[in-house]
Amino acid sequence: MTLRTLPGFMELLPQEQIVMDRMKAVIRHTYELFGFAPLDTPVLETAEVLLSKSGGDTEKQIYEFKKGDTDLAMRFDLTVPLAKYVALYNNDLTFPFKRYQIGKVYRGERPQKGRFREFYQCDIDIIDRDELSIVYDAEVLAVIYTVFKTLKLPAFKIYLNNRKLLSGFLESLKIEEKTVEVLRLVDKIKKIPEEAFLGELADLGLAEELNRKLLNFIKIKGSNAEILEALEALQISNENFQTGLNELKTVISQAEMQGINPQNIQIDLSITRGLDYYTGTVYETFFDEHPEFGSVCSGGRYDNLSSVFMDKKFPGVGISIGLTRLFDQLKNSGLLEIEGPTPNRALIIVQSQEYQNLALDLVGKLRREDIPADVYLRDCKFKKKMEYANKIKVPYLIIIGEDEAQNHVFTVKNMKEGVQQTMSLDDLIKEIKA
Amino acid sequence: MTLRTLPGFMELLPQEQIVMDRMKAVIRHTYELFGFAPLDTPVLETAEVLLSKSGGDTEKQIYEFKKGDTDLAMRFDLTVPLAKYVALYNNDLTFPFKRYQIGKVYRGERPQKGRFREFYQCDIDIIDRDELSIVYDAEVLAVIYTVFKTLKLPAFKIYLNNRKLLSGFLESLKIEEKTVEVLRLVDKIKKIPEEAFLGELADLGLAEELNRKLLNFIKIKGSNAEILEALEALQISNENFQTGLNELKTVISQAEMQGINPQNIQIDLSITRGLDYYTGTVYETFFDEHPEFGSVCSGGRYDNLSSVFMDKKFPGVGISIGLTRLFDQLKNSGLLEIEGPTPNRALIIVQSQEYQNLALDLVGKLRREDIPADVYLRDCKFKKKMEYANKIKVPYLIIIGEDEAQNHVFTVKNMKEGVQQTMSLDDLIKEIKA
Repeated sequence: MTLRTLPGFMELLPQEQIVMDRMKAVIRHTYELFGFAPLDTPVLETAEVLLSKSGGDTEKQIYEFKKGDTDLAMRFDLTVPLAKYVALYNNDLTFPFKRYQIGKVYRGERPQKGRFREFYQCDIDIIDRDELSIVYDAEVLAVIYTVFKTLKLPAFKIYLNNRKLLSGFLESLKIEEKTVEVLRLVDKIKKIPEEAFLGELADLGLAEELNRKLLNFIKIKGSNAEILEALEALQISNENFQTGLNELKTVISQAEMQGINPQNIQIDLSITRGLDYYTGTVYETFFDEHPEFGSVCSGGRYDNLSSVFMDKKFPGVGISIGLTRLFDQLKNSGLLEIEGPTPNRALIIVQSQEYQNLALDLVGKLRREDIPADVYLRDCKFKKKMEYANKIKVPYLIIIGEDEAQNHVFTVKNMKEGVQQTMSLDDLIKEIKA
Repeated sequence: MTLRTLPGFMELLPQEQIVMDRMKAVIRHTYELFGFAPLDTPVLETAEVLLSKSGGDTEKQIYEFKKGDTDLAMRFDLTVPLAKYVALYNNDLTFPFKRYQIGKVYRGERPQKGRFREFYQCDIDIIDRDELSIVYDAEVLAVIYTVFKTLKLPAFKIYLNNRKLLSGFLESLKIEEKTVEVLRLVDKIKKIPEEAFLGELADLGLAEELNRKLLNFIKIKGSNAEILEALEALQISNENFQTGLNELKTVISQAEMQGINPQNIQIDLSITRGLDYYTGTVYETFFDEHPEFGSVCSGGRYDNLSSVFMDKKFPGVGISIGLTRLFDQLKNSGLLEIEGPTPNRALIIVQSQEYQNLALDLVGKLRREDIPADVYLRDCKFKKKMEYANKIKVPYLIIIGEDEAQNHVFTVKNMKEGVQQTMSLDDLIKEIKA
């Protein structure tokens, strides 16, 4: 038998898993802080539901199989299951419906560096009936901002745009029938040279003069205020453009109101997100010093979540963090502080086994004080016990021997600072909790 | 298209999901308190790995399929993936290795009430090389005890036994070659009448006199002390029996040392757990008033976790909580307190939209104080806003109108107690945090 984990499936050592889980906990906590309720949909759905909307690429990547008479598929994102959920249960939900979901999704693509076949997505969406306030587009910015600040990751910027601006601009050039193709092309601008971009635009059958204008438009740079000013100065009066401009202004001003550092937000007119279903605000997030990571958190506003499944209109705005890939990139770049392979705050070792019951009594007391703790139970030389303590990198080592047993005290070593003290149970608990 | 969730797959409304997630959080927190590190293995493995050990039933239930040239399968428990993990990474792990895993597993069995095809298992295992201290068998008891106490569920008892006792007893009757069959049969004793049990024993070809003795043995009742005494009185001297008796005594005495209420532990000699791989202590957990739930947490001690995969010996002890089924049973029995469909502690509503920015400013402040909070943004009649507040059952409702805006105060309604007060921001934060 070949003992192996499938390629493209992340499997971590405990010390790495602890860091990964801490990141997941920060994301979950932040989502709940902003009032998002948890959702947990099945990994398996009928193939009919999952493939209702998709094009060719998704079908090639999907894990699909038959069990009995049913065509089953593993979810490839958390959006289609959400669309199904809202369509199925909308009569039982309270709107605006703010949900988060942190779960694994599956894409059977060719495995390559940095690509995973099983990976966590951490999604939020705010969905309402018929209409959804633009203020939520700013709230989503605040969520992204708070998540990355709380994760204590390197300097980042959230780039945002509004798709109505570009489509309004195309309308003003009278080439609105090419909007979908142009939006998709603009999405690639950072990955291809300018001349290649102009070439591809020409392939769409657009006049060179228009293409230059388009390039100049998406290249408008400056502070957020400067870009907004430049957009005003274009004096484009169609509704699409004006709505987009107003929405973008609102999002920027509301974001500051929500306490976001303006340094962390940048309007970028070249951001479109390739997906057809975004209709307004779009977001991407990059680390300043690591553009090679790509966008680590993206999303946007859409007019109708469940259009494939039903007629009612459910507009929404949401984002997704690809946690597995993000963790992998941070790890490979040495940006994660990986500590010991245990969640323990304290480890208790005994000078000789006769003190084991004292150690077990103490560990129970620590745990009842909500301090993760453990006793090393193997009967071996004291040196071996110390080696174990050093290996697992536990913050506090507690030693019990004859002196400690007689005097009802404990010897506590702060392993980071190397300081060793003898103290009472109460002081010990205070010290570790501090 | 048929819009549906697959039968046997749990999908909850937000108010239920919040309770489910709270249970999961308690279990996770308790596991970490006892020093277990998180593990997260893939849902998909090669079929070869997952089916290496299994018999016919598992193969029929497993979700198995081909992608390219690879036979893939969805995990049906968390034990086989753990065995693979330890076999693959044992050189990088620190032993004793205490891991927990909370994850979904898959069994494509015929759907029926209370049976799920996708369900959460919440597992802990402690694994060592070559030998593992019996004290860990008591620690596992303490974990089960702490989990169910912290979950604030109805009165429960953990039933325990040691398989060496029964196999030692069979040895003393000189019918040890039937041990596996008898252990499996004893496992069924609570589900079939005594006469049927004796009949099935007879079918194994055992003499009636022996079968009576066996029945009397597993029916030994009384307090833990009384049962231990009765076992002593049998004066069975073979090593198997004596080791089992000593282990059981140690586990019982250590459990009390760990602060477990003795009322919550009961030796039951008829508990064997059908699975072949348990070799010592075995556990089952029942609610006193709900025996129909079956065991809600089971497990035991095994000699060798990874025997299918490698020659090195890794003894361990562990348990599993079937969370999805437990949640379903508790819900159906009205034993869960289901509240509102939001994690919010506070909801802010405004008398008119001109105060919306004050509300947004406040919500940011509350969130920065780690209070999950939200603003109701829809521009509608005040009555509608109140209806929403009542519907989501938020603990605190904060109202901002002209008076509040002028005087820099907030009107706060404690929705449970129905008390309404006007207060400053500082007092408001104190009130909600209390």
